[in-house]
Amino acid sequence: MDIPKENFSDWYNQIIREAELCDLRYNLKGFVVIMPNAADVISRMYRLYEDALERKNHRKSYFPALISEKNLEAEKDHIEGFAPEVFWVTKAGNNELEEKMIMRPTSETAMYPMYSLWINGKSDLPLKVYQSCQVWRYETKATKPLIRGREFYWIEAHNVFPDEEGALSQVTEDMETTEELIHQSFGVPFIFFQRPQWDKFAGAVNTYAADTMMPDGKALQLPSTHNLGTNFAKVFNVKYMDELGEEKPCWQTCYGPCISRIFAAIVAIHGDNKGMVLPFHLANVQVAIVPILKKDGSKEVTSFVEKLAETLSKKYRVVADFTPNTPGFKYNFWELNGAAVRVEVGARDIESGKAVVVRRDTGNKEFVPFDELPKRIGEVGEEMNKGLRDRADAWFETLQTEAGTLDELKEKIEKGGGFVKVPFCTDALKGEACAEKIKEFCSANVRGSKYGSNEKPEGKKCIACGKPATIYQYAARQY
Amino acid sequence: MDIPKENFSDWYNQIIREAELCDLRYNLKGFVVIMPNAADVISRMYRLYEDALERKNHRKSYFPALISEKNLEAEKDHIEGFAPEVFWVTKAGNNELEEKMIMRPTSETAMYPMYSLWINGKSDLPLKVYQSCQVWRYETKATKPLIRGREFYWIEAHNVFPDEEGALSQVTEDMETTEELIHQSFGVPFIFFQRPQWDKFAGAVNTYAADTMMPDGKALQLPSTHNLGTNFAKVFNVKYMDELGEEKPCWQTCYGPCISRIFAAIVAIHGDNKGMVLPFHLANVQVAIVPILKKDGSKEVTSFVEKLAETLSKKYRVVADFTPNTPGFKYNFWELNGAAVRVEVGARDIESGKAVVVRRDTGNKEFVPFDELPKRIGEVGEEMNKGLRDRADAWFETLQTEAGTLDELKEKIEKGGGFVKVPFCTDALKGEACAEKIKEFCSANVRGSKYGSNEKPEGKKCIACGKPATIYQYAARQY
Repeated sequence: MDIPKENFSDWYNQIIREAELCDLRYNLKGFVVIMPNAADVISRMYRLYEDALERKNHRKSYFPALISEKNLEAEKDHIEGFAPEVFWVTKAGNNELEEKMIMRPTSETAMYPMYSLWINGKSDLPLKVYQSCQVWRYETKATKPLIRGREFYWIEAHNVFPDEEGALSQVTEDMETTEELIHQSFGVPFIFFQRPQWDKFAGAVNTYAADTMMPDGKALQLPSTHNLGTNFAKVFNVKYMDELGEEKPCWQTCYGPCISRIFAAIVAIHGDNKGMVLPFHLANVQVAIVPILKKDGSKEVTSFVEKLAETLSKKYRVVADFTPNTPGFKYNFWELNGAAVRVEVGARDIESGKAVVVRRDTGNKEFVPFDELPKRIGEVGEEMNKGLRDRADAWFETLQTEAGTLDELKEKIEKGGGFVKVPFCTDALKGEACAEKIKEFCSANVRGSKYGSNEKPEGKKCIACGKPATIYQYAARQY
Repeated sequence: MDIPKENFSDWYNQIIREAELCDLRYNLKGFVVIMPNAADVISRMYRLYEDALERKNHRKSYFPALISEKNLEAEKDHIEGFAPEVFWVTKAGNNELEEKMIMRPTSETAMYPMYSLWINGKSDLPLKVYQSCQVWRYETKATKPLIRGREFYWIEAHNVFPDEEGALSQVTEDMETTEELIHQSFGVPFIFFQRPQWDKFAGAVNTYAADTMMPDGKALQLPSTHNLGTNFAKVFNVKYMDELGEEKPCWQTCYGPCISRIFAAIVAIHGDNKGMVLPFHLANVQVAIVPILKKDGSKEVTSFVEKLAETLSKKYRVVADFTPNTPGFKYNFWELNGAAVRVEVGARDIESGKAVVVRRDTGNKEFVPFDELPKRIGEVGEEMNKGLRDRADAWFETLQTEAGTLDELKEKIEKGGGFVKVPFCTDALKGEACAEKIKEFCSANVRGSKYGSNEKPEGKKCIACGKPATIYQYAARQY
């Protein structure tokens, strides 16, 4: 790694390449290969996320990857939003297909016609079903591995309720799940914004999206949860018979954590000039043991390290690095690859009964008696997880500022980026004009209002049009 | 369930519907929705399989679902085999694509061009990489849910070695993995056949496939492992520099356990006239507690059962069924859905300090003191797993017979089906003619020779052409 993180875009491309996370040489534009060093972590993230959803009574399903043209077209806003970016399957073997199919860009139109068959009475509700899958979108903007591409790896949970109350409380549950996984477990901070009406999911009543910040001060959208109201339910006939025998359309929500993109945020936010830094429970290698071999006594060290590796392997993912490289080379290699803890063992350490334990993120060294290693490594892992999260939180805090005028906003956006709180008018149509004005002026997007905040811009004026402001919105440059 | 298992095809369709495993009403031909009752089990099977592959040093990856036309065309046999069954993506958004893409029917042609970039020297070998994914094939024969369709869920492991020895020992390892997972863990018996040359994987040197039997005496192919030799390596330039500085093509293998189909075999083989029977560790509900409620004393039973469910939930997947149905209805429901163990608790059981524990497969009842339940349920689970496997093995044994003449073969095939061992000539071309003659005569396919068997048909004649036989082949009707 020779590009410093201050130069974020190049640093990111470098870490993708050097830590062997993705191979960009796949010969289809916008598609990349996710290599084992990334895939193993992403797989762990999937399992943790799936387990969390299942604890909250979601059940797994597998829906087809292909969707008929007529399903896609059923919901007017949805087709308008997605038509420009779907891949079309028009031929199979040597046959031109009579009915064309699309590769799912998201699964509402695959799932809800089935939901309509599954739901009859109130006893079928709530229905909480998710799937872990790939989706495909014909992205025409510049792509960036794991952040923007034509294929991504996500989970989509699609839930159905008899009433608005159920849908809104699901939105809250989705936010809690996001906090639990992305912030508490992965150490990535975010803010939940309610997106402006002109920027919501195609077909939704309201969209709530968790935005994090990349090190260059540009926002990255992580999971969003959508209150779909009864929009799709009416189109796809997802209804139930209530106690009085009356047919009622269901309320629906969907939630879409994009695991590959969340991984990109982890790499970007926790990484440093030496390479990857991963939370302990996500690291491919939790303990890298580096034997310090001298010409004499190497045999003793080797067999000692082999035994140590065996012991530690019972609790952790361990590599004992016996490659014929220098210790310094190995330190760099395991730092680059995000091994969470390094254990150095030489003849003198064996004699003194203590190993050198080095924590990846801080580089902090401590001497730990060999018999305490299994326990102490776990503690170091916990401390590191907390340290990563706290440091990310503190940094994230500094990226939240405020501006009262367009010039002030521009200065903040250009200086360090981040989320800039601005007073804003609320009119859905005029609002969009104001957002466009801001975008033209300083390339910042209006990301929405902070969910759950009651703060009002008393007596202030909309930063763009000068009319009385009624709400705070947050502006940021974005990925 | 009112169709008996003797009537297998109808019984299978019935269990798919009644146990809510798949919904066939998805509006694309050949595509089905895998519902939660099946998806949860399939997901558990995926995790077990992935963990086994990783223990054997495979690493996970995610390769794109789309493949360029030119990659597909590179290997002559491969394109010939797969061209008739690929789905073509020809359009994206409103643009006709200049280069058409296919949806992966299998990933050799996606992965090996990348392998060519990843492998330089012998130190990069062996390379053992897998992915868990969906593949799509334009199946034109009649489809059957989870058994034959246009989309299936599998794992594909693609390994690379410097020499034939490495490839052959990987084939053996794949067979061991199959034994470990499918037979030992899932209780499904099979035989590994070396497929005849005319029936091998398109592009392989040799194909070894694990065939199980469905209850109707027709064979079902489970995982196959292929020795690809250097065929693909030469085409995709997967080579390494040996110690003498000479470029050598690599040897490759691939292994493809189709998880959705293995699940179908589990359902078909272990299921009975009451519904699903699943190995204990795969069951969605490991313990179904049915409270026996009377008008008086119900409160006591309810709170006792709630506490019991809480205790057992620490070790098992538990449901306490408080729905307002009769106990008999609940017994049927949980039997249909394959709950592994049923625990009945009424006021008298609480008084006597013992619960009634019923094992799903045998219906065997025993009285177990409440404090021994957590331990005893685990034991019953183990006993059931062994019982399922032993019963399936014994049944599978009866489906292996022998025939010396076509008439005899026909009789055996038509009577009970199964694998019929027949003396066979070996000539690759004549052999195919003989296999076709057998197929015409009694609709049985030649599945191959038993892997690892040295038994020779001394002095016997080929069952089809009458020339001297040199090998035993196995014939069976097939899915």
